[in-house]
Amino acid sequence: MLAQVGYAGLTMDAVARTAGVSKATIYRRWSSKADVLVSLIDTASDETLVVPDSGSLRGDMVELLTALAEVLAGPGGSASRALIGAMKEEPALEAAFRRGPMARWAEAFATVRERAVARGEWVPSGAASLAAEAGPAILLLRWMISGMDIDQELAVAVVDEVMMPLLRRL
Amino acid sequence: MLAQVGYAGLTMDAVARTAGVSKATIYRRWSSKADVLVSLIDTASDETLVVPDSGSLRGDMVELLTALAEVLAGPGGSASRALIGAMKEEPALEAAFRRGPMARWAEAFATVRERAVARGEWVPSGAASLAAEAGPAILLLRWMISGMDIDQELAVAVVDEVMMPLLRRL
Repeated sequence: MLAQVGYAGLTMDAVARTAGVSKATIYRRWSSKADVLVSLIDTASDETLVVPDSGSLRGDMVELLTALAEVLAGPGGSASRALIGAMKEEPALEAAFRRGPMARWAEAFATVRERAVARGEWVPSGAASLAAEAGPAILLLRWMISGMDIDQELAVAVVDEVMMPLLRRL
Repeated sequence: MLAQVGYAGLTMDAVARTAGVSKATIYRRWSSKADVLVSLIDTASDETLVVPDSGSLRGDMVELLTALAEVLAGPGGSASRALIGAMKEEPALEAAFRRGPMARWAEAFATVRERAVARGEWVPSGAASLAAEAGPAILLLRWMISGMDIDQELAVAVVDEVMMPLLRRL
């Protein structure tokens, strides 16, 4: 529903109707639509993100960015876009988003980085952090703002033409 | 108002109250809050963005990204974040945003690129386009999603550690 109607369009009436229960039933458990969404984000965040372990930094980054491109292009991506837009007005929503999906992706990137450091493929520095940020940033910018398609081809291009050249020169 | 209460919180009642006019007066001119905001974006987009012309690609990029960081960190940035979140549910809003602020920034970057190509500092290619996208993408990602501060220091780091190393190797 969130993906279809957005945060402003989502009402407790519509939530109750879609769930086939009364509004009173919903209000017994949640005090507002933000509250419903916080529970939803927390539940959805239990899904584990499989952290790639291909043996090379390039292989892991291609897998991670391809997975990110798939998530963003799917229905979860549309729901997330609606949530991100509403985040600043709803601190509880922002907190749930940070401790849920954002923390999960940050941990996956951190694990990939640690393994690359252990293999000598990554020398930790501020420049390396920016280089690593550039890949997901390009995908997220196109998805959130430019409205361009993101797919595996873009994920691979971003790894091979932006992230790896920067990380190899450090 | 948009920066403070967000798109979902903005109502025609509040717009009328703040403007000191009746709701009927507003509805004579605009049919919905999306319609009000389309006019607002179109008007605000008349402001000209000064395109830097420092004589070097690095200088121009530092100026452009510093200007972008300033805009995003200001009140116009908060209003834009609220609009971007609502964009997908309101095609008219999205169209106004694309022909207004987005087109203005895209033109500025295109002018800087053309001058750099003419000076021999930029060899046009898909990889060069991705490299150029990486800078603004990092600023926009931090601003929109990570909630991190963006300032001139970050703008300079992004130019010197991400964009220029990539563009120089092509």
